[in-house]
Amino acid sequence: MPKIIECIPNFSEGRNQDVINALANEAKKVPGIKLLNINTDQSYNRTVLTFIGEPGPVKTAAFNCTAKAAELIDMEKHRGQHPRIGATDVIPLVPISEMTLEECVVIANELGVEIAKKLGIPIYMYEKAAKIPERTKLQDVRRGEYEALKNEINNPERRPDYGKPVMHPKAGATAIGVRPALIAYNINLSTTDISIAKKIAQYLREAKGSFKDSRAIGVFIKERNMAQVSIMINPKYVSMYRIFELVKIEAARYGVNIIGSEICGLVSRDAIYEAIEYYLRLENFDPKQVLEDNL
Amino acid sequence: MPKIIECIPNFSEGRNQDVINALANEAKKVPGIKLLNINTDQSYNRTVLTFIGEPGPVKTAAFNCTAKAAELIDMEKHRGQHPRIGATDVIPLVPISEMTLEECVVIANELGVEIAKKLGIPIYMYEKAAKIPERTKLQDVRRGEYEALKNEINNPERRPDYGKPVMHPKAGATAIGVRPALIAYNINLSTTDISIAKKIAQYLREAKGSFKDSRAIGVFIKERNMAQVSIMINPKYVSMYRIFELVKIEAARYGVNIIGSEICGLVSRDAIYEAIEYYLRLENFDPKQVLEDNL
Repeated sequence: MPKIIECIPNFSEGRNQDVINALANEAKKVPGIKLLNINTDQSYNRTVLTFIGEPGPVKTAAFNCTAKAAELIDMEKHRGQHPRIGATDVIPLVPISEMTLEECVVIANELGVEIAKKLGIPIYMYEKAAKIPERTKLQDVRRGEYEALKNEINNPERRPDYGKPVMHPKAGATAIGVRPALIAYNINLSTTDISIAKKIAQYLREAKGSFKDSRAIGVFIKERNMAQVSIMINPKYVSMYRIFELVKIEAARYGVNIIGSEICGLVSRDAIYEAIEYYLRLENFDPKQVLEDNL
Repeated sequence: MPKIIECIPNFSEGRNQDVINALANEAKKVPGIKLLNINTDQSYNRTVLTFIGEPGPVKTAAFNCTAKAAELIDMEKHRGQHPRIGATDVIPLVPISEMTLEECVVIANELGVEIAKKLGIPIYMYEKAAKIPERTKLQDVRRGEYEALKNEINNPERRPDYGKPVMHPKAGATAIGVRPALIAYNINLSTTDISIAKKIAQYLREAKGSFKDSRAIGVFIKERNMAQVSIMINPKYVSMYRIFELVKIEAARYGVNIIGSEICGLVSRDAIYEAIEYYLRLENFDPKQVLEDNL
């Protein structure tokens, strides 16, 4: 198994399909890169690409996308609902196979240096790649968004980690981060009462003393007229089935059932196997028994 | 995805490790063949190989193993608990990917012709490859075993489908069959009472009006002092989770719980996904979300 990184760059364009295609194309055309998903949001005016590959190709693809975004997106004209500081707003990197978070941080820094130097875009390192504790949280890096950062970038506490303390005239600034592979998992409830989803979410947040790296919120899904618990988990610390069963027993307290659940984006095979081992009480299951893994 | 066949030849030798290694080696050394399992049973005095590959290599490997078994195993001296008619007793073929049962039957016949012609071993075609309805069931082909067949092989109803109606002096006869990919699934009960396992098994047998292609027996597992329902299912007609839940409700009638379950041998990825979709009530799950399937 080679070293594999997942890269999920977010771009400040979600309406102009030509620009979106041009960005996706920059990733797709790098040999060794597999583009898994293109997610665009009109009201956010934002596009998220998901691609995977070995460290070298991932760096090339992320750099080329960032260069293309600087060419095609003008932050002076950008409007959208989602916070952002640049044309390429954030580049999260996730170590997927044969890599530690620390090794991934090295790659993130190399990418940051290259973008700052060759494209003149100031770079902020966040989350596991943060160089100072105040930049661990992305929301702190993005405070005031593009418009405020433009004026504050030369203030000591807002100077970039790489590049000159001056915004790129069109592309603004970019944040590069490293985080563990999380699973985005939504559980739909048989109620329209969002307060129930919010109460349940409380028990699933690391910030409230629950599982490490877990985040959870209660949301209302208008199209389906139902409340949902939307959760991010680190499968290293908690399984999907345990989350499912916990939400089930908490919901039961209100006479509410689970209607369904959804995995958003990628999930590891092990996380799937863990669930089936639990529910079928499987003994001695070996992933090598799965036929397709032998082909 | 290429055409893939699974081949599970059974040989009448389960004690002499040199012979077992020699047989396994014949499969392993064919380019394009992946040997997945070697299962030997001392009291049966029998070895089962499991290998997969494209039709050409599978035919070569099955032929070479059969030739080697004819060279190293003498049926005149063989004793064992399991019914058998030859050194290579049976060669079941299972279409795994991009193949129908019918296409697999063509391959099975080609293999039968070649073994009969080049090795002088009489061949019986059974199950989906049966040429006459009376040979659909392997137990009918194997009636009286090697010792009886030696005397009866020239009787009209026992003449082989390929080859002369005379046993190979050392290797006896071989049965070649085609069957759909089944899952061997055992469910362990919190009781020592085998009669409970047997009663539950009744509800799971096609022969008793249950799911198509399903077979089930109640057995006692001495080493663990417990009763077990041992089941074969065709995942096309019934899921593992449905079997698990049915056994659970039937066992509950006797105050018995499921201790655990075991998948023996291969299982398809889809069968796993079906179970997790059920238990987590997953909506819109796409196997493409499984990270490793993208690497």
